[in-house]
Amino acid sequence: MRLLSKRVRQDREEVLELVFWLGRASRVQLMQITGWSKTKVLSVVAELLETRWLTESEPLASTGGRRASSLTLNGRRGCVLGVALGATSLVVTLSDLNRAALDQRTQRIERLDDVEGVTQAILGACRDLLRRVECGALVTVGVGVPGPVDARAGALISPPLMPSWDGFPLRDTLQRALGAPVYVDNDVNVLALGELERQRRGAAAWHGDETFIVVKLGTGIGAGIISHGDLHRGADGAAGDIGHIIVAPHGPPCHCGNTGCLEAVAGAAALVRAAEQAARTGLSPLLAEALRDRGALQAPDIAAAAHAGDAAANTVIRQAGTHVGQVLAGLTNFFNPRALYLGGGVSDIGLSLLSSVRQNVYAHSLPLSTRQLTIDHLPDKRSAGQRGTWALGMMQAIREEQLT
Amino acid sequence: MRLLSKRVRQDREEVLELVFWLGRASRVQLMQITGWSKTKVLSVVAELLETRWLTESEPLASTGGRRASSLTLNGRRGCVLGVALGATSLVVTLSDLNRAALDQRTQRIERLDDVEGVTQAILGACRDLLRRVECGALVTVGVGVPGPVDARAGALISPPLMPSWDGFPLRDTLQRALGAPVYVDNDVNVLALGELERQRRGAAAWHGDETFIVVKLGTGIGAGIISHGDLHRGADGAAGDIGHIIVAPHGPPCHCGNTGCLEAVAGAAALVRAAEQAARTGLSPLLAEALRDRGALQAPDIAAAAHAGDAAANTVIRQAGTHVGQVLAGLTNFFNPRALYLGGGVSDIGLSLLSSVRQNVYAHSLPLSTRQLTIDHLPDKRSAGQRGTWALGMMQAIREEQLT
Repeated sequence: MRLLSKRVRQDREEVLELVFWLGRASRVQLMQITGWSKTKVLSVVAELLETRWLTESEPLASTGGRRASSLTLNGRRGCVLGVALGATSLVVTLSDLNRAALDQRTQRIERLDDVEGVTQAILGACRDLLRRVECGALVTVGVGVPGPVDARAGALISPPLMPSWDGFPLRDTLQRALGAPVYVDNDVNVLALGELERQRRGAAAWHGDETFIVVKLGTGIGAGIISHGDLHRGADGAAGDIGHIIVAPHGPPCHCGNTGCLEAVAGAAALVRAAEQAARTGLSPLLAEALRDRGALQAPDIAAAAHAGDAAANTVIRQAGTHVGQVLAGLTNFFNPRALYLGGGVSDIGLSLLSSVRQNVYAHSLPLSTRQLTIDHLPDKRSAGQRGTWALGMMQAIREEQLT
Repeated sequence: MRLLSKRVRQDREEVLELVFWLGRASRVQLMQITGWSKTKVLSVVAELLETRWLTESEPLASTGGRRASSLTLNGRRGCVLGVALGATSLVVTLSDLNRAALDQRTQRIERLDDVEGVTQAILGACRDLLRRVECGALVTVGVGVPGPVDARAGALISPPLMPSWDGFPLRDTLQRALGAPVYVDNDVNVLALGELERQRRGAAAWHGDETFIVVKLGTGIGAGIISHGDLHRGADGAAGDIGHIIVAPHGPPCHCGNTGCLEAVAGAAALVRAAEQAARTGLSPLLAEALRDRGALQAPDIAAAAHAGDAAANTVIRQAGTHVGQVLAGLTNFFNPRALYLGGGVSDIGLSLLSSVRQNVYAHSLPLSTRQLTIDHLPDKRSAGQRGTWALGMMQAIREEQLT
């Protein structure tokens, strides 16, 4: 799908972004994808080699004819920071321009709602990494945060997990302190970008039309939407907030003020509540034992019980999967994605979660929407977040012409 | 939002599409929107004037400085056919390249499911118009049909209203007979394109990032999605099928095989069923009278009763509006559109429809998604369909480089 761009990008940004997504591209590939003349591709590439944003690799193995050399981003031209802030942890990764990770800092976050403290923790980790590793100028910073983000303002907006961050100018604060462009987005958009990067890097052919949804299941529930090859943020950057779609009109109250939201029936807290009830009513001896031992249950207790064959734990998981599946069935009818991926801490709580999601989506979506639909766990879940912060920083810096 | 295009379009297609949407543009405007150099814009425009796709209008009134002349598509370079097929009617419009309607044929369709008969009716109307009006070569044909379309195949896929059309090569058949490129899409996508065209034509500034949903309420219920300035068709062209989102899990059966689909509780047939019940149970004397007179009710009877202040008729409408609003609240959370527009025969059945849709969306969507959201009737509903078939034909022909 081609889109009439608001402002047609400069040719160099087009080529930079292509090489960024592909990881490695030949001039012939660039000609095929852009449809430009050989002269134009050669001249744009020459300019990018000259300014050292691109570098030319060893020629690929000969296939008989003239050996084609391939282009990559010039890793040594500078570095990228990726900041993944979670509810209880902070991971900051320093990478080179070609995505090779150079170093990483992980630390616990005790009080997420402490704006000053968390900001200092982020800056401390960033500066520490930049001091220890020789990698040239900081080119861009991508930041993922667990809450709704106004991407234009670079700030969180009424975030339920971290209310005191509301409107805090996170982007501008980091930008001033680090002296490089900073891009902030919510964590599930970052996961979606990470998955897009994974699919594209090294792909045999350029696709450019990917349409899929990444669903993060955890304390909160949200979706990252890739629409025809690009992140869909919606008119106000609020797209993907599926946790507050009402799925059980007469269900339990939600912290948002409504009742029966998806999050209220299938978020981690709802699962724990249902599991504790199963423990107390004697439905599950295994969960009762865990509850006795520890005084309260957590998601991993449910996972362990389900794994051990506990029927009540599996029922809890299956019910959550049914609710998630009902919402995803509706979104499949509306949006017709090629794939749905489940990520987040709750996504691998038990096999019955994925199977009941699948069952509901296939049962309640129309044949035309599902004939090629795949529903699966987010591949490479462990590194999708880091991949995504890197991709966010690079993509936005290229698009906003910050690579000069 | 800029999107990395699969194949960067040729410069002339970029300019043609801009002028097509704007209706009229100056060279300065083109420079501002594309970001191209003056030299490049002048050269592309010169080529399009030379090949007669563009034409130069009278200079605009002087504002003191040198008077700017403006560019439009050259109406006389050829003509466009727009075919709007409905459940019971066929409207074929012949327009010039600049959207001036030249002539129109409207006829009743008695048997929508008669593939051969309807195809002949379409071709008959097209040929008749082309014979009667002198307008140069037929450049493109846009076709809207009441059912799910596989846009790549140019065919209907399992259409509930017209099952025997399943897989019939409508595009190829018309293309062969008319000797011009033909583009087929479903009727609500066509409405959405018509609304996009209405917003852009003559707009003071180029937007290019429109994100809105047009909902068609009638026998069927569907949505046309404009995402960041372009039609979102989804991975298989099935996007927008909101009629089969389940909104009342224990509700009535739907013809699709599920129960409680939006269409089953808020489609025209459901409204009529509820109204007939209100008539039979004595809740509504007005509806009872209409039912006695005519043996069966139709949507206009409900509209008339509601307009006359009948409480039961208004309850029927309000309940349908509540269900539509519940679904749209979920889609607003997911997609974060700037606007929702209601169209289709049922959309103006009574004031309480729009108000209960609004009430539900604002109550059940998050503040960030709704702070700038407008919910209204589709503006210029009467001509959105014709506008849309024209826009579909032109947009696709330009993008697929059929204007040579």
